[in-house]
Amino acid sequence: MERQVTDVQKIYVEPKITLVGAGPGDPDLISVKGIKALKAADVVIYDALVDEALLSYAPKEATRVYVGNPSGDENFSQATVNQLMVDYALNFGHVVRLKGGDLFVFGRGYEELDYAASYSIETAIVPGISSAISVPGLQGIPVTHKGDSDSLWILSATDSHGHLNKELNDAVQSSATVVVLLGFEQLSPIVKRYQEAGKGRLPAAVIQNGSMKNEKIAIGIVNTIEEVVVEAGIDNAGPVLLVFGQTVALHHKFCHILSFLEQHED
Amino acid sequence: MERQVTDVQKIYVEPKITLVGAGPGDPDLISVKGIKALKAADVVIYDALVDEALLSYAPKEATRVYVGNPSGDENFSQATVNQLMVDYALNFGHVVRLKGGDLFVFGRGYEELDYAASYSIETAIVPGISSAISVPGLQGIPVTHKGDSDSLWILSATDSHGHLNKELNDAVQSSATVVVLLGFEQLSPIVKRYQEAGKGRLPAAVIQNGSMKNEKIAIGIVNTIEEVVVEAGIDNAGPVLLVFGQTVALHHKFCHILSFLEQHED
Repeated sequence: MERQVTDVQKIYVEPKITLVGAGPGDPDLISVKGIKALKAADVVIYDALVDEALLSYAPKEATRVYVGNPSGDENFSQATVNQLMVDYALNFGHVVRLKGGDLFVFGRGYEELDYAASYSIETAIVPGISSAISVPGLQGIPVTHKGDSDSLWILSATDSHGHLNKELNDAVQSSATVVVLLGFEQLSPIVKRYQEAGKGRLPAAVIQNGSMKNEKIAIGIVNTIEEVVVEAGIDNAGPVLLVFGQTVALHHKFCHILSFLEQHED
Repeated sequence: MERQVTDVQKIYVEPKITLVGAGPGDPDLISVKGIKALKAADVVIYDALVDEALLSYAPKEATRVYVGNPSGDENFSQATVNQLMVDYALNFGHVVRLKGGDLFVFGRGYEELDYAASYSIETAIVPGISSAISVPGLQGIPVTHKGDSDSLWILSATDSHGHLNKELNDAVQSSATVVVLLGFEQLSPIVKRYQEAGKGRLPAAVIQNGSMKNEKIAIGIVNTIEEVVVEAGIDNAGPVLLVFGQTVALHHKFCHILSFLEQHED
C-alpha cells in the first residue's frame, strides 16, 4: 500500500496514538504486535532507551522524531513529549509512541494516554517486556522461585519529589525479591537500610544495560555489592537495575562468592 | 533449509532447550525473538495457557507436545514436563519450551533451566510479557502512576505449601499497587485482610483471560469487589488476576462507581 501525503489527504487525517513498549533493550524483544503497529505508523516518536534498529520496521516515508532521555533531558520534558504526540497525530494520523521497557512500570504511559484522551484522540496499547522481570531473568536470576520467594516488589528508588522512596523501609523488611529501578545513585542509602535491617548477607545484584551487548553485572551480598559494582565498571550511563533477595543466589557466579566469603569471614 | 531426521543424523543431535515466554494470551504479544526460536525448533513443548496459533511458526516437521495446565493437571507434573523436555532435547535437538505469561513470575522457569543444566544441556531464555503488568495496563490501569503509586508488589495467592501467602499481611498494609496471581479462590480471605486493615474503600479490579477475546473485568472497591465479580460472570476457567490500589481508580469505569457509592452511602 503506497501512501503519499498531499494537502487533500491531510484534511482526512484520522488521528490515533499507539503506545508501544519496546522491551528492555535487545530489539528482538519487542512484540509482534509492536512491529505491526510500527508498520502502520505515519510518525514514530521514540526515546533514548529505544534501539534505533526498530525504526526500520516503520514505512520509509514515516516521520521519525527523537525525544531524548525521558527522565533526564530538559529539552524534552513529559509535557513537551505529550504535546508533540498530539500535534503529530492531529496533523499526520497514526503516531506510534515507542518507549523503552514496558509502559506502566515507571514508564509514565498513563500520563501520555490521559493527555491524548483530553484531545479525544483514539489510543491503543501494546505492552512491552518489563526490564524489572526480564533483565534479572536473562541473567539466570528468577524474580520468584518456589521455596525462595513468593513475591516480587518493584520500586522506584525515589518518589515523585525526588526523595528516597519511603516504601523501601518496608521493602527491606519483607521477604519479597526487591527490584529497584532508576536507583543507581541511591545504591548507598538502600544498602544502608538493608544493613540496618540486619540483612548484610542478603544476596544482591546490580545490572547495567540489561539484554544489550554492553551489559554489565555485579553479583554479591548487601555488604559487598558497592565494591563489586566499582570492580565491574558499572556507572550511570544506560539503565541500571538493583536486585535484592535470596533468588540472586541462584546466579551461577554466586557459589564462588559464597565460598570466598566463607574463607574470609568468621 | 530442509531437515530430514535419519538415524545417522540422530547421532549428531545437538540438544538445546530454549524457554520462551508467550505473553499474557494474545498470540501477537510474543516477542520477535520468541518467533525466531519457534522457527528454529525441532520440538515445541507447550502448555494450556499458550494460544495454539503460535505453533504455526514452528517448522511443519517439528514435533508438538502438549503438557496441559501446569498448575492443575496431574498428568503433567513439573517433574514430567522437565523429563519430557530433556528426553526430547537429547533425541531430537532443539526443544522450545513455550510457556504462558513470562517465565519467572511464578512461571517455574528456573526449575526447568536447572533440570536441563543437570544434564549439561545448553539453554537459552526468551522472556515474555508478564500478565501481572500488561493485563491491568491493557485495561487502562497503570500498575504505577506518579503521585498514586511508586511501587508494584506482585504476589502468588498461596505459598509453596498451598496456604495463604503470609506476605499478603504486609502487602495489604503497604501503599504499593498489589497484584495477586493464581488467586481467584483466595479472593475472600484477601478482601477480609484489606477490610481488617481499614481499606474497604480501596479500588480493586479482577480480570479473567486478560488480553484475550473472552476477557472479563470487574471493577469496584474492596467492599464490593466480590459482588461485582459475580455480576461480571468471572470464574476460575482461565487465568484470573487481582489488582488492589489507587491506580485502579484511573480505569474509565471507576468514576461511575464512585458517584454510585457516594449516592448510596453516608
